[in-house]
Amino acid sequence: MPLISQRGEEAHLSPIRKLSPYADAAKRAGKKVYHLNIGQPDILTPAAALETVRQTPIDVLAYSPSNGNASYRAKLPAYYQRYGIELTPDQILVTNGASEAVYFTLLACMDRGQTLLAPEPMYANYVGFAEMADVQMKAITSYIETGFALPDLEAFRRAITPDVKAIMLCNPNNPTGAVYPESMLRELAKLVLEHDLYLIVDEVYREFCYGETPFFSALNLPELEQHVIIIDSISKRYSACGARVGAVVSRNAALLTTIMKYAEVRLSPPSYGQMLAEALIETDAAYFSAVKAEYQRRRDVLVARLQAMPGVTCYCPDGAFYVFAKLPIDNCDRFCQWLLESFSHNNATVMLAPGSGFYATPGAGEQEVRLAYVLNETDLHAAMDCLEKALLVMSDE
Amino acid sequence: MPLISQRGEEAHLSPIRKLSPYADAAKRAGKKVYHLNIGQPDILTPAAALETVRQTPIDVLAYSPSNGNASYRAKLPAYYQRYGIELTPDQILVTNGASEAVYFTLLACMDRGQTLLAPEPMYANYVGFAEMADVQMKAITSYIETGFALPDLEAFRRAITPDVKAIMLCNPNNPTGAVYPESMLRELAKLVLEHDLYLIVDEVYREFCYGETPFFSALNLPELEQHVIIIDSISKRYSACGARVGAVVSRNAALLTTIMKYAEVRLSPPSYGQMLAEALIETDAAYFSAVKAEYQRRRDVLVARLQAMPGVTCYCPDGAFYVFAKLPIDNCDRFCQWLLESFSHNNATVMLAPGSGFYATPGAGEQEVRLAYVLNETDLHAAMDCLEKALLVMSDE
Repeated sequence: MPLISQRGEEAHLSPIRKLSPYADAAKRAGKKVYHLNIGQPDILTPAAALETVRQTPIDVLAYSPSNGNASYRAKLPAYYQRYGIELTPDQILVTNGASEAVYFTLLACMDRGQTLLAPEPMYANYVGFAEMADVQMKAITSYIETGFALPDLEAFRRAITPDVKAIMLCNPNNPTGAVYPESMLRELAKLVLEHDLYLIVDEVYREFCYGETPFFSALNLPELEQHVIIIDSISKRYSACGARVGAVVSRNAALLTTIMKYAEVRLSPPSYGQMLAEALIETDAAYFSAVKAEYQRRRDVLVARLQAMPGVTCYCPDGAFYVFAKLPIDNCDRFCQWLLESFSHNNATVMLAPGSGFYATPGAGEQEVRLAYVLNETDLHAAMDCLEKALLVMSDE
Repeated sequence: MPLISQRGEEAHLSPIRKLSPYADAAKRAGKKVYHLNIGQPDILTPAAALETVRQTPIDVLAYSPSNGNASYRAKLPAYYQRYGIELTPDQILVTNGASEAVYFTLLACMDRGQTLLAPEPMYANYVGFAEMADVQMKAITSYIETGFALPDLEAFRRAITPDVKAIMLCNPNNPTGAVYPESMLRELAKLVLEHDLYLIVDEVYREFCYGETPFFSALNLPELEQHVIIIDSISKRYSACGARVGAVVSRNAALLTTIMKYAEVRLSPPSYGQMLAEALIETDAAYFSAVKAEYQRRRDVLVARLQAMPGVTCYCPDGAFYVFAKLPIDNCDRFCQWLLESFSHNNATVMLAPGSGFYATPGAGEQEVRLAYVLNETDLHAAMDCLEKALLVMSDE
């Protein structure tokens, strides 16, 4: 029997999904599982756009162009204009979700063995894509005590070695919910220019900012026109995760030409998803304000409940729909698995994403978990009842 | 301005799509372009399945499991049973088209620098995925004079060095249309066992065999249970290329567990596409026999027209929907570009895929082109009128 590749053996398991078999087993045993592990909102996908897809006549479900349907790309600049971002359709390349956008960007920007700098905790799958692209991930730790604020410029400066080719941010941040202020991004821009780096910013949570810090896009840093690459997606924006429609956005034409080579190898992004995405451009501001208000209420519930639990450390995040909390536990992987395998409260339990998987630094985040507030308030309360009870059980043992 | 990665600069352009900008320009100039360059059939996607998708109520277009919807995977074994292949749903992992299936398979089977052995001409994007996965592609040339038959066992044996980890076939073959007989696969199986290799077989054209050689799946080689990985897709089978739904199929559980790690990093395959794929399982045998008869008529038209052109060498392929022909030209890339840029006949032209891009051996295939018989007979005749006229113009110059 031939061996599995060594890289395959060593590939990290996604902390978001690796416990799924335990969740499936719990459900088969009749237990209700509240999914706070994954950013899969219960918010309705805008019905009008779903109806447009339904009404679209299809004879042959054909490939699209490798960079996405021209009709969809033609409409996207109007969406970005709402954020004061001026783009042409040629500066947008449609991908299979933000996932593929991250991967293609790494391939086009970085050679094997080069280093990608990113604050941690970070979106866990960046580590997976860095492994696939064979680039080194170098993390600059941010801390719960400061609400996971962007590390200061000196921390970035110290980390820059000749092998560093790019800095990657997620703003608003998954998994911490931090929103990075314009002033910090402008400071960072100087460093990026000074060292001629790429600045890759994942802005898929752009719509979800609740605090006093307004969202500021890296596309609004004109001095970084050739340096900035934005990772985007319709998944969170319109609660359309299953569409698998993302994008790479950049004003660096040579970079997009290179990414197009990779895009052609995989032929095209999904056609149905793009039909939906094109229809979703018409979604009005009222949808976003209602959804934002709903998330903010959920955040407030989650934070209040967590802060009321003895031994739990939790700040109030300004953006996205995640809370990264510190629990009175010593091994988050074991704890999250135990919640699914051995614990129940009112015949229910809660699924969380173990915090360790969001750190590139080995051993970090062992007491932390990511909670996605993607369920309605009733379910969130029930999930928090489970967690509260579970922590009590743990402390009794 | 930061540099594009060297691997990005060196990445090969897909021969199937790289001339698209010239085709777009020709269309903008009012020229009709017959697309024989890409395997995008004009065959209708089964209407009943499209209607099922339309009727499916969707509130939230959610992520699916990373290995695909359980309901879809549960129905797939019945499809394979028609070919005498016994599978369980756990032996199938749903991917973003066959493209992703190829890429994930390479990552899970092979380490960086290891060698993949494949007959050439080969599906061009294998080379692209090998580059992404950082594995070496070693080609064993097959020849038009023998209808691109599978190279003999001795040719494979000679090519096996310690760094060879896998053999990759496409059967029925894209781009040559060759169908590999059971006897040859059984011979090759011995070699695979002897050297403990993986045997990766792309069977996406399984439905399209027209000759006396019946299709034989590598999944029906019981001695290779741990060695065989099948690449599959609904794109060609049901003329549903835009669904982006493929699969990796293997009885090697450890291998699928490893591929699942990569699948989790990219979260999930497209949800709409999977709804369609599930509905398509119900497609009856009458659909396939009608489609097969249609392709066979087209093949006969294409081959007869090509064989009637002076200086053109063309065999009659037994499967898939491609003809790989040798033309009286000296540089296929230049010729295919010229067809789009400078030639027209009745204000139309034809787009072909340059043959060189289907060879891993530098300099090979310069006189060859791939033609996909994916258009109806009237359009095929019009396309062949263009090619015939173009070759006359060339010979006069």
